[in-house]
Amino acid sequence: MIAIGIDPGTAVCGFGVVALEDGRLRLVDAGVVRTAQGETDAERLRLLHAALTALVAEHRPVRVGVERLFFQRNVQTAMVVGQARGIALLVAAEAGLVVDEPTPNEVKQAVCGNGAADKAQVAAMVARLLGASLDGVADDATDALAVAIGCAYRAMAMPRVAATR
Amino acid sequence: MIAIGIDPGTAVCGFGVVALEDGRLRLVDAGVVRTAQGETDAERLRLLHAALTALVAEHRPVRVGVERLFFQRNVQTAMVVGQARGIALLVAAEAGLVVDEPTPNEVKQAVCGNGAADKAQVAAMVARLLGASLDGVADDATDALAVAIGCAYRAMAMPRVAATR
Repeated sequence: MIAIGIDPGTAVCGFGVVALEDGRLRLVDAGVVRTAQGETDAERLRLLHAALTALVAEHRPVRVGVERLFFQRNVQTAMVVGQARGIALLVAAEAGLVVDEPTPNEVKQAVCGNGAADKAQVAAMVARLLGASLDGVADDATDALAVAIGCAYRAMAMPRVAATR
Repeated sequence: MIAIGIDPGTAVCGFGVVALEDGRLRLVDAGVVRTAQGETDAERLRLLHAALTALVAEHRPVRVGVERLFFQRNVQTAMVVGQARGIALLVAAEAGLVVDEPTPNEVKQAVCGNGAADKAQVAAMVARLLGASLDGVADDATDALAVAIGCAYRAMAMPRVAATR
């Protein structure tokens, strides 16, 4: 099964695509969608919607994870991230996909077995679980891969330790 | 010209549609989109996207106003409102419309000539400017009408006093 993780943002939106086959994870795709600074918010959201819709059409996931973000410093930032989150959730609903909305702690717990793991630990575990180097992969894409991995585990209702053997 | 104002929300999203013809405002439509509580966030956003897309197709506005909200009590509320705002902005961009994103103060200034006007003043001025009773119109729809009026004025680059003669 294919799972997509999304780290929502309007300027930079991370995505990660993983396959879980016979209990083994495989890296399928990862990257970021960037929208031009000169555009209006509305146009940037339209471009984001188009890019995520194309991503879903290409990879045909059964499940999408969109991180539930709490850490925003202020309400204005939260509002802007919320706009991008809304687009990601819409794309998932339009494709009829199951949506996970894990908290950052749940993502860290799924990937590292520790909800308080730091970014470096998460990145190291993502690379290990996928058996792939993440050199040159953007931070937002790595975060999205972590979400996708948690999402894939949840789809299989498989405990982390069994899936990481 | 037709302008639509949107007061974004996922559970209840207000909309107001006004026409500005020869310097006179006319009430075209107003109401709220409600999405079922039992649905997922993603599905509610999909329903909101479909409803707002239908609204734009029906009224063919040249301009859409989506209020820029700052007053949220906490970041979680701002995130959720942001999701609905993202959908409204997307619908506008998909239809190729000009988008205004006025602050609440700008809306009050446009409708009442006073950025600190209270809700009752705004409602009274909306009714007066539209020459229509707002009895039975939901608060969110009245707010959206105020946004639509400000949006229509801006489209005409017309000072408020001239438009309200």
